[in-house]
Amino acid sequence: MQWRFARRAEGSVSSAVREILKVTERSEVISFAGGLPAVESFPLEALREASRRVFEGDDAESALQYATTEGYAPLRQWIAARLSRDGVSIDPRQVLLTTGSQQALDLIGKALIDPGDRVLVETPTYLGALQAFRLYEPDFVSLPSDDQGLDPEALNAALLDGAKCLYTIPNFQNPTGRRLPLARRQALAALAEQRGLTLIEDDPYGELDYQGAHLPSLLALAPRNTLHLGSFSKVLSPGMRLGYVVGPVEVIDKLVQLKQASDLHTAGLTQRIVFEAVKDGLLERHLPQVRKLYARRCEAMLDALARHMPQGVHWHRPEGGMFIWVELPAGVDASLLFERAIAEDVAFVPGAPFYANQAELNTLRLAFVTVDELRIEAGIARLGALLGEMLEAEPASVVGLEV
Amino acid sequence: MQWRFARRAEGSVSSAVREILKVTERSEVISFAGGLPAVESFPLEALREASRRVFEGDDAESALQYATTEGYAPLRQWIAARLSRDGVSIDPRQVLLTTGSQQALDLIGKALIDPGDRVLVETPTYLGALQAFRLYEPDFVSLPSDDQGLDPEALNAALLDGAKCLYTIPNFQNPTGRRLPLARRQALAALAEQRGLTLIEDDPYGELDYQGAHLPSLLALAPRNTLHLGSFSKVLSPGMRLGYVVGPVEVIDKLVQLKQASDLHTAGLTQRIVFEAVKDGLLERHLPQVRKLYARRCEAMLDALARHMPQGVHWHRPEGGMFIWVELPAGVDASLLFERAIAEDVAFVPGAPFYANQAELNTLRLAFVTVDELRIEAGIARLGALLGEMLEAEPASVVGLEV
Repeated sequence: MQWRFARRAEGSVSSAVREILKVTERSEVISFAGGLPAVESFPLEALREASRRVFEGDDAESALQYATTEGYAPLRQWIAARLSRDGVSIDPRQVLLTTGSQQALDLIGKALIDPGDRVLVETPTYLGALQAFRLYEPDFVSLPSDDQGLDPEALNAALLDGAKCLYTIPNFQNPTGRRLPLARRQALAALAEQRGLTLIEDDPYGELDYQGAHLPSLLALAPRNTLHLGSFSKVLSPGMRLGYVVGPVEVIDKLVQLKQASDLHTAGLTQRIVFEAVKDGLLERHLPQVRKLYARRCEAMLDALARHMPQGVHWHRPEGGMFIWVELPAGVDASLLFERAIAEDVAFVPGAPFYANQAELNTLRLAFVTVDELRIEAGIARLGALLGEMLEAEPASVVGLEV
Repeated sequence: MQWRFARRAEGSVSSAVREILKVTERSEVISFAGGLPAVESFPLEALREASRRVFEGDDAESALQYATTEGYAPLRQWIAARLSRDGVSIDPRQVLLTTGSQQALDLIGKALIDPGDRVLVETPTYLGALQAFRLYEPDFVSLPSDDQGLDPEALNAALLDGAKCLYTIPNFQNPTGRRLPLARRQALAALAEQRGLTLIEDDPYGELDYQGAHLPSLLALAPRNTLHLGSFSKVLSPGMRLGYVVGPVEVIDKLVQLKQASDLHTAGLTQRIVFEAVKDGLLERHLPQVRKLYARRCEAMLDALARHMPQGVHWHRPEGGMFIWVELPAGVDASLLFERAIAEDVAFVPGAPFYANQAELNTLRLAFVTVDELRIEAGIARLGALLGEMLEAEPASVVGLEV
């Protein structure tokens, strides 16, 4: 039997990160590769108790029956109220629950992207979004970005012309850890309104702000132009697969139709467990501990980088989130470092798959949240030593591109 | 802000059934409309206990963390072993867990269907499959079908030429309740192997056989050509959103890549709860009760139809599943009957949305499993009386097509 795949599927490949994660499952590996939250950050006891309440409540059978595509009404209300904190008024009808926010990316691609449509993305950007959108065959345009994220001033007519939508992670971006400053958010919102541009604001990390210095969302600044994606993965549990997308009702209605065809609805059980968990303020009690844990590990990694990295290596100090982005000296291929590191039981993700177009091969992403401080120190020391050896002993092989 | 949707999404509409279900939510409505299993068939106590074991087990944190796209390994093994009962040997690597089997339909459409590809379907067929596939812009070909399901002898070269895949529900089909006889299964399997045709075998109702007369699956008869879809929705709980697709490893690998982009993976919590529930033989204890309940309600509806339907109305006696398909006298539009019925608090689904191409408007689907016997009798009596009135008093308006 000769299987013929559709054109859109032929080019699809497994996520580089997920393939790397398989290599790093051995417990002796110090892995900075995964984008996973720390297991010790899960409010296991609260979720267990919430689950018990759902199963023992009057409404248990409804949790097990088919349900509306839009999602569990009390949870939609809770999300709308929480987002309204930013000063924008969100109606529950603007909220669609999704099977992780990854599904929201897929639904948005399905709803908006025709083959050849120009989709603007940050440089680099979240590879799961590239994966989701790529199936709908867009033309990705990589936007000029710097240490503060994408630069609205660099968005000239040539870049914007005919652009359908702009995908951005304004808070503690994956993979760079960058946060977009307020002035740039305002400029981007104004630009979107002026040009009728759709902003796809992906915000899984916004609650992981170490200092509690919350910035307004693009949803709040340009509500008519923004599809805002949120998730319970980084604040409660990713295994629940619970995310949401918020936007104008006419777009949400279309996404609901597409979600019907995609999975009918997201599990009623997980929606109710999460609602039972959060309705009485669990996040307010729980998140400060998560932020503190992540801030401590971030600090440990920044210290270790400063101590162990050879000259010419650069990185950014994140104000929240889970990632540090590292730039190696020009011409050094991070995938060669990866091969040597994995042989010595240290893992990370080379930067290349995060680029929609021309990749900068001398970049890599370090995730610090799942590794304790001692192992962070040990892992970064090993990486630094390996990199030092590569730079000194074998410049020809590591800077292959320039030799 | 002017939203421009992608071409594939522009034509999408909400499922007719889901829209009808919204109308029928009032408790005074006797609804034969939903494709929902009976709430009293859910093994609530067993699922509650399974959930407790997952949350209190050593592995609870893994249930809440990100997981592999393929699904929870012990559940993949359990499914592979169960399907191997049919005499075909299934490897767990051939099993992909999905967010309901609706997601498997979406992933298969994504993987296989290019715009304009010929996709063969039964007449009528499951409208959720039409919805899922339609987004990938196929050319649907409606196959000749009779009281025993699709007729392989009628599949001539003109129908088969250039066909990419054939979608079928061989067991107690939605919407007709028909089951494909063994000889037709064998003929279809032989045809598929001979012509390199992909069979998409959707089997949510196979376990709901009232007499326990199990027939071999197409997966068992043509394993190299078949993608087999299964679901826990009708045997445990649809709100869990847990289904699976089984097929050749090379196709499953592609579906895994596409699922990564669609929702990363299905909730680890629901997968473990279902595995905890079924691993010790729950289905063997539980399903006989469900079959008995559904057989009793089916019999009650067949009796009521025989008593109350006017002459010229035909229906099929199902051997399992949840549906009875009714054909009204030629020219009678079931949607007109629907309007009158809903005004008198009885609901069903008119047949039109189940047709990929030319609809037969004088058809309708009755679901009997969620309504108790007294209300079945009352509802069918009301329908019969309404139909009798329509046929006698206003022939011009009800047989509009022929006047």
